[in-house]
Amino acid sequence: MSYPASLQKLIDLFTKFPGIGPRQAARLAFFITKDENSLAESLASALIQVKEKTVICKNCFRTMEKNLKDLLVCSTCLSPGRNKTIITIIEKEADLINLEKSGSYNGLYHLLGGVISPLDSDSPRKLKLREMFDRIKDILEGQGQAEIILATNPTTEGDTTALYIERVLLPLKNKYPRLVISRLARGLSLGSELEYADETTIKSALDNRTQRT
Amino acid sequence: MSYPASLQKLIDLFTKFPGIGPRQAARLAFFITKDENSLAESLASALIQVKEKTVICKNCFRTMEKNLKDLLVCSTCLSPGRNKTIITIIEKEADLINLEKSGSYNGLYHLLGGVISPLDSDSPRKLKLREMFDRIKDILEGQGQAEIILATNPTTEGDTTALYIERVLLPLKNKYPRLVISRLARGLSLGSELEYADETTIKSALDNRTQRT
Repeated sequence: MSYPASLQKLIDLFTKFPGIGPRQAARLAFFITKDENSLAESLASALIQVKEKTVICKNCFRTMEKNLKDLLVCSTCLSPGRNKTIITIIEKEADLINLEKSGSYNGLYHLLGGVISPLDSDSPRKLKLREMFDRIKDILEGQGQAEIILATNPTTEGDTTALYIERVLLPLKNKYPRLVISRLARGLSLGSELEYADETTIKSALDNRTQRT
Repeated sequence: MSYPASLQKLIDLFTKFPGIGPRQAARLAFFITKDENSLAESLASALIQVKEKTVICKNCFRTMEKNLKDLLVCSTCLSPGRNKTIITIIEKEADLINLEKSGSYNGLYHLLGGVISPLDSDSPRKLKLREMFDRIKDILEGQGQAEIILATNPTTEGDTTALYIERVLLPLKNKYPRLVISRLARGLSLGSELEYADETTIKSALDNRTQRT
């Protein structure tokens, strides 16, 4: 005894998503077969719509809404109020949204689309690293200066990725001494307690302490 | 700054699935926008297909393939080789498949579609309990006998559900003394070790020990 063919196909497709194993895929598929609120139809049309109405910005690789002028560059990259010589390198779209929410950044972004994983030797090729390098070189050639903020997450993989990018970009400094590479500060988060902070965070908070007159 | 409308809609739909929160929903949606293998189209058509080609058996509530004769009862329920006076009550479809794989069962099934949750007072109404009761009564009226095997999982919620069903069915015994209600045996699983077994399992294994000669 096995599942009906159409059901098995749906299960197989769900397993293609990141973080969804065969068991959860089956659970999702059965939720569809048992559902009485036409979720299948809504989801099917939402899937088609999202592919029709969105496009990836060819500059920063964010998902953006297609617009009437058929532009392939997002509103952030085009905004005249943004400093186009500062680029923040981030892992994923959700990180970008949160950075924007802070309201304290006025430069551009570059979405890597993931991190370098020590367990997946193919991972650097899946990231938008080549595109990042070319983009930074173009800015340096045009403006003579650039600041690159490495904002990958403070995880082993995020740090590995930041280190990798740093090494790739450093040679550019010979030709363009006004290239600045920085990394988001490490320290205590708001609402955290020293009692529970890990050693690395405490060390960073001490090393990077800020002087008050 | 927020997500494009079509993307937000897709995220909202993904969160309707069991076990998918807003973060995973966003991750799935971005996987779709970045995907280049037309996964969106395949998934959209698989969703429509599964709703077109499958139907819920009106007897045991399994997902079954629609057939040419437009029958609304599944092949297991119709099979002449199956003992129609034995019904195993199970939580979900994946449990059924595994029970069938064992090859040691020849009766019918009844899918509850979940368990009674102490935290959700509405949960009994979501299950196919009314239908289960009517089905068992029909069998008893027709055949004068029935065995009900309670095969909910050995979890707090599964046990609560089994206990609830037992109480619901017990009054039927007055009229039909040949109604047998049983529960799947508890004991040590194959490959497990006494050293690591929990107390409840050891107690069950002792209480239900089987005599050899």
